[in-house]
Amino acid sequence: MVYRMGDAPPKQNESSGRRNFLKKSAALVSGAAATGGAAGAAAPPALSLEGKPWERVYGAAFTGYGEPSRFERPVVRHFLKPYGDLAPGSGAALAPIERLEGIITPSGLHFNRSHSGVPDIDPNEHQFLLHGLVQRPLKFSVDALLSYPMTTRIHFIECSGNSSRNLAPQPLQLPAGAIHGNMSCSEWTGIPLRALLEEAGLAPDAKWLLAEGADSAHMSRSIPIEKALDDALLALYQNGERLRPEQGYPLRLLLPGWEGNMNVKWLRRIKATTGPTHTKDETSKYTDLQPDGRALQFTFEMGVKSVITRPSSTMTLPRTGLYEITGIAWSGAGRVNRVEVSTDGGLTWTDAALTGAERPKAFTRFRLPWEWKGREAVLQSRATDEAGQTQPTRTAWRARYSPGNLFHNNSIIS
Amino acid sequence: MVYRMGDAPPKQNESSGRRNFLKKSAALVSGAAATGGAAGAAAPPALSLEGKPWERVYGAAFTGYGEPSRFERPVVRHFLKPYGDLAPGSGAALAPIERLEGIITPSGLHFNRSHSGVPDIDPNEHQFLLHGLVQRPLKFSVDALLSYPMTTRIHFIECSGNSSRNLAPQPLQLPAGAIHGNMSCSEWTGIPLRALLEEAGLAPDAKWLLAEGADSAHMSRSIPIEKALDDALLALYQNGERLRPEQGYPLRLLLPGWEGNMNVKWLRRIKATTGPTHTKDETSKYTDLQPDGRALQFTFEMGVKSVITRPSSTMTLPRTGLYEITGIAWSGAGRVNRVEVSTDGGLTWTDAALTGAERPKAFTRFRLPWEWKGREAVLQSRATDEAGQTQPTRTAWRARYSPGNLFHNNSIIS
Repeated sequence: MVYRMGDAPPKQNESSGRRNFLKKSAALVSGAAATGGAAGAAAPPALSLEGKPWERVYGAAFTGYGEPSRFERPVVRHFLKPYGDLAPGSGAALAPIERLEGIITPSGLHFNRSHSGVPDIDPNEHQFLLHGLVQRPLKFSVDALLSYPMTTRIHFIECSGNSSRNLAPQPLQLPAGAIHGNMSCSEWTGIPLRALLEEAGLAPDAKWLLAEGADSAHMSRSIPIEKALDDALLALYQNGERLRPEQGYPLRLLLPGWEGNMNVKWLRRIKATTGPTHTKDETSKYTDLQPDGRALQFTFEMGVKSVITRPSSTMTLPRTGLYEITGIAWSGAGRVNRVEVSTDGGLTWTDAALTGAERPKAFTRFRLPWEWKGREAVLQSRATDEAGQTQPTRTAWRARYSPGNLFHNNSIIS
Repeated sequence: MVYRMGDAPPKQNESSGRRNFLKKSAALVSGAAATGGAAGAAAPPALSLEGKPWERVYGAAFTGYGEPSRFERPVVRHFLKPYGDLAPGSGAALAPIERLEGIITPSGLHFNRSHSGVPDIDPNEHQFLLHGLVQRPLKFSVDALLSYPMTTRIHFIECSGNSSRNLAPQPLQLPAGAIHGNMSCSEWTGIPLRALLEEAGLAPDAKWLLAEGADSAHMSRSIPIEKALDDALLALYQNGERLRPEQGYPLRLLLPGWEGNMNVKWLRRIKATTGPTHTKDETSKYTDLQPDGRALQFTFEMGVKSVITRPSSTMTLPRTGLYEITGIAWSGAGRVNRVEVSTDGGLTWTDAALTGAERPKAFTRFRLPWEWKGREAVLQSRATDEAGQTQPTRTAWRARYSPGNLFHNNSIIS
């Protein structure tokens, strides 16, 4: 029985199924007989259902746009507001990964890292400019963009500052999402950026792009042209519907596998340039501080990484017996080939089963049954991607950077 | 330029990108020179962006659970209420497929077919009973179910009454979703039903199951045991989060590829039986009326089918030139192997490009570029699945059934 935060313990008279599960679990693990007690007797006990109030009343009418159950209202994003109420839209709202399942992050719970809040953009007024070192500068309305041929792919986005909270000297007593939820995975539909660059006609000396958002911070990043011509998308739809405002409505750049803030939201402009623009968003931050005090700029690709979402920090295991350990793995370099799980702090490792591993630069769900015998256990996961990269230990990762570095922490999570 | 319903026409001074697209389209199709006019001159015109109001103000604060943009509020489900306000939750709310993209249907827009409204179920009180011809009847709390090992898969659900409106003698002037939107596709996570049946211990004479919902209609269907032991799931999560109330919160049965109402929502009970129970929901309806007046019962598997979502009914093509024809294909028998598109009412067919065709019993997105020359055109799509089945023509389909039959219409849509 894995508690979900805020859940009441199961009532004993409702948990005969749980008891049988435990019996069977014990049988699977220890070889003990699965029968015995009332449930195993020749005449099965008569179980019945009480009528519930909702079976006696006509239910709610249709709605145009549905919402989660009122009983799921506690499932919300975790806020990280470094400036508090002075700047209530600066910082991050992290996905509550400890309450989620599967691979797709619901759009309402997709993480949101914003530098100056979420702009309220009228799509009938928004414009997108493609200019700089091109033969034909182009200006698009959103309607014009919606008429282009599109592509649909599932990809993750991770903020390069994700898991920086895990660098605290003592483990934080916070849910997994509050520490590692600066990442999410969606089905994106949009226009291959390559198609528009070809339409505009790139000049031979166009080697970089500047991408700029329409938020009041004009968040801007420099992008090598090779990535733009490879798998970059101008995303218009997320999980089947138009982008949510918090994810860049009406238009965002998608650079699959690359650090989150390069996937510029509320995209207003792409300018072809000869070199990087060195914007404030790629010099004053989003650089990796090295042990010698210098900062490494332009670490674009996100490393291979994994996190156990259940059971995880702040959850309680109310009994010994069989649990499912499950979590998410991903890599900016492509597919996840393997996820190993350790329950003894890294001494021994067992391969987990993978779902979704066929998709590059997308979440992969891993699962492993685990019998908890009541002793202290340190759970870890270790992912390996198709490029052959494996997550480093926390010690090895720390040795590569200054103690002050906050970015690109893909070390093994305990 | 494909108009989306309710959109204003693009302003000419905002659509230079569109003009270039049209020029290029013309070049691609007719071989005419792509350059010419201001955009093709040696000195590119200087294009600039006006500042917009949202770039000057600090944006909105973080929210716990995000919502679509206020500009997307017209994107809602289409209601089909046969009893009007006498029973405002009986009938169907259909997915607005003409406004959606990709493969995943957003949970808020997933179709909802309900017989007595949406029950407001407290998951701490809900119980699920597995009984009948089993060695150990089991009763589960939702918490107990949440502790079981799970599986994640993407599957469509289609009501067997979907597209019955397309049987009208004259084409209805309604959006595609109002006619064909009684289907959706989600990522589902849940417990393989097989695991719980094995735990309960099926008796040798258990050949069917009865599945019953906790709505006030106690919607019930009979299910052959082979399907239950194959790929049936007890779904707890949809698109990463817990099920929405309209899709069965806290628990629904999922029978991939089988007709919608067998995927019993608000699941309270499964009973193992020797034969079908012949409930009201599988005798008085959900049967296929034959030409001789007899009704065919238990057509479980949904046929291979496809629908063009854009351009589609009620949309206007404001210009000649290049468009993308796109839509969805699916089959209850497995994967979609091929989708052909005709723009001349079925005289000639061209293969469309497919996205997601690797997943069985899930939506596949198809796309095909099309040059509209301004003449009348009848667009059709024709899907073929891995079982070798191809969509029948409307005439061939109608000949198989009584004119009064409303179910399992998978004929080619014009």
